[in-house]
Amino acid sequence: MRTVGWDDDRDCVVMVDQTKLPTAYTTYHAETVPELVESIETLRVRGAPALGAAGAYGVALAARRNDAADVESYREAVRVDAEAVADARPTAVNLSREVETVLDELRRCATVEAARDRTLAAAREVADADVRRNERIGEHGATPLADGDTVMTHCNAGALATVDWGTALGVVYSAHENGKDVDVVVNETRPLNQGSRITTTELLEYGVETTLIPDNASGRCLQEGRVDAVVVGADRIVLDGGETFGDQAIVFNKVGTYKHAVLADRHEVPFVVAAPHSTVDTERSADEVEIERRDPEELREIYGTQNAPADVPVYNPAFDPTPMELVDYLVTETGVHEQPLDREAFAVERGVKAAE
Amino acid sequence: MRTVGWDDDRDCVVMVDQTKLPTAYTTYHAETVPELVESIETLRVRGAPALGAAGAYGVALAARRNDAADVESYREAVRVDAEAVADARPTAVNLSREVETVLDELRRCATVEAARDRTLAAAREVADADVRRNERIGEHGATPLADGDTVMTHCNAGALATVDWGTALGVVYSAHENGKDVDVVVNETRPLNQGSRITTTELLEYGVETTLIPDNASGRCLQEGRVDAVVVGADRIVLDGGETFGDQAIVFNKVGTYKHAVLADRHEVPFVVAAPHSTVDTERSADEVEIERRDPEELREIYGTQNAPADVPVYNPAFDPTPMELVDYLVTETGVHEQPLDREAFAVERGVKAAE
Repeated sequence: MRTVGWDDDRDCVVMVDQTKLPTAYTTYHAETVPELVESIETLRVRGAPALGAAGAYGVALAARRNDAADVESYREAVRVDAEAVADARPTAVNLSREVETVLDELRRCATVEAARDRTLAAAREVADADVRRNERIGEHGATPLADGDTVMTHCNAGALATVDWGTALGVVYSAHENGKDVDVVVNETRPLNQGSRITTTELLEYGVETTLIPDNASGRCLQEGRVDAVVVGADRIVLDGGETFGDQAIVFNKVGTYKHAVLADRHEVPFVVAAPHSTVDTERSADEVEIERRDPEELREIYGTQNAPADVPVYNPAFDPTPMELVDYLVTETGVHEQPLDREAFAVERGVKAAE
Repeated sequence: MRTVGWDDDRDCVVMVDQTKLPTAYTTYHAETVPELVESIETLRVRGAPALGAAGAYGVALAARRNDAADVESYREAVRVDAEAVADARPTAVNLSREVETVLDELRRCATVEAARDRTLAAAREVADADVRRNERIGEHGATPLADGDTVMTHCNAGALATVDWGTALGVVYSAHENGKDVDVVVNETRPLNQGSRITTTELLEYGVETTLIPDNASGRCLQEGRVDAVVVGADRIVLDGGETFGDQAIVFNKVGTYKHAVLADRHEVPFVVAAPHSTVDTERSADEVEIERRDPEELREIYGTQNAPADVPVYNPAFDPTPMELVDYLVTETGVHEQPLDREAFAVERGVKAAE
């Protein structure tokens, strides 16, 4: 099933309840706008593309629940609800962007009836577009994989971060669709354990052979020849390395990605980055990207149990930069970009194709 | 204070209670042999050299508690107690070896009185020898460090794994004694978190500036130039790389060590292994060393909370091999062995010096 979608029988939003992972893979129905807002706030649904779809469906939910008498007050009431959805997590740009997409559709509707239908259709299109894009990333990314290959992945760039299919894990699912039996080694991904909690769950759910390892064992796995490719997603790709990295593109992704790129390089295992063109940032250089530092408590405690002295200083960056020289294949919805990356053509392609 | 020692006032064994870390740094007094056995079983005291001293003190404790009437039945009673101590953790070779050292002393005693004194003296000597050896490792290892350097370490090769001072952390303490202000970046060391639980605790206790990081952030730290040397211990050093690694020595240490050696190499940061000659194994090649695979539950649960699907397959090796070509300085109690390592001279030195 999709990470977030529409339940036609109950006429409401339905999602995989990610707060229940890894203990249970269950769904949650948001029947009202406050229930949807609460679901976004409590991370029942997370991941930028999935949040975009949740926002889009949220506007449809508001449009279908509201029964204001005249079109004007109806539009205003839905707009207020939509704002509450968009504000549920203010930093996720996809969320507010896709709320706006469906509000635009609402504004074009002359009647309440039309608005109820056409906002839902617009939300479905937002969700479908994400899946189509991911399927294209998956198709392109699967081409270098062979039947029987083992892929290592880090964090969760999977179906559960998107509406469906995912980016890095989409590559695995596409390989399977093409008859290539690919299995996956999943890094635990401390300190938030997205690998052990989320990635393993969705891979098992898809029926993919999965092995969980501590992050510290990834070097050993590569050393033993257990891994044929390392495939990860990307949070942001900049085309200018700045003073630090010089004249090359840089991939910002979950902290630990860089280490795996260095190890893959040493063991001559292909390192693959799979991400949509929308993650490419043509404005900034690597030096201008601020790396979020997260709460020391993520290390000092695990699941509420003390894991370190209460006052120990902690350095906990959320992301790290991987220079493109360590990336063998950069995969987007427009194809596989081999190295050395033609950054100018890539930027143009993004401008042209990302708008489609 | 020492990890394990003798309390003269209470005439019993005293130790840092490591089961209380990182919440509290407290001591536990083992007043009887069963209390000492239970302390070893429950890991109040752990680490091969510390267990050796605990075993030695255990025989002294038995000798001082027993009040058998004649020397023969006294010796037999103490021997039975000593066996219980030695068996508390059957795989730790240091434990049974040092129990035997003190039993040898007991056998040479003609009277109960003499045995009570001389077993304690022998146990003190076992503990003191460990500290002296570690201080020598520390002295040698500190020479390449400069005032203001930042050292990264993995796992716990510190005072709490030995009687005092430690090996990798002994290098840090010796640098401090020599007036070099060295601070330490500590990897959490999943899945058993020895870095966050034990290493940070003892460094703060010694007053060393300490920063805890998730294992995934070590690459970022090296990339940022935050680290001037990586210093780790060793569980076993073999002089023959076997078919896998060819004609070079191999360091087996806590899983994740290899990754850090590769990263240190890329960033041209010295990689230092600090360990006593007793960890050198001249019998085996790297191919003949079996790497312990630990319980999948160490990943599936953390501190009793589910961290992964209950049935997910897990690969959880305890150690990994680091080829000597990645080690810049191998430090033992006999000195700093630079690369390329003269393995023959090193083996001879071990034979000669380890016996002292």
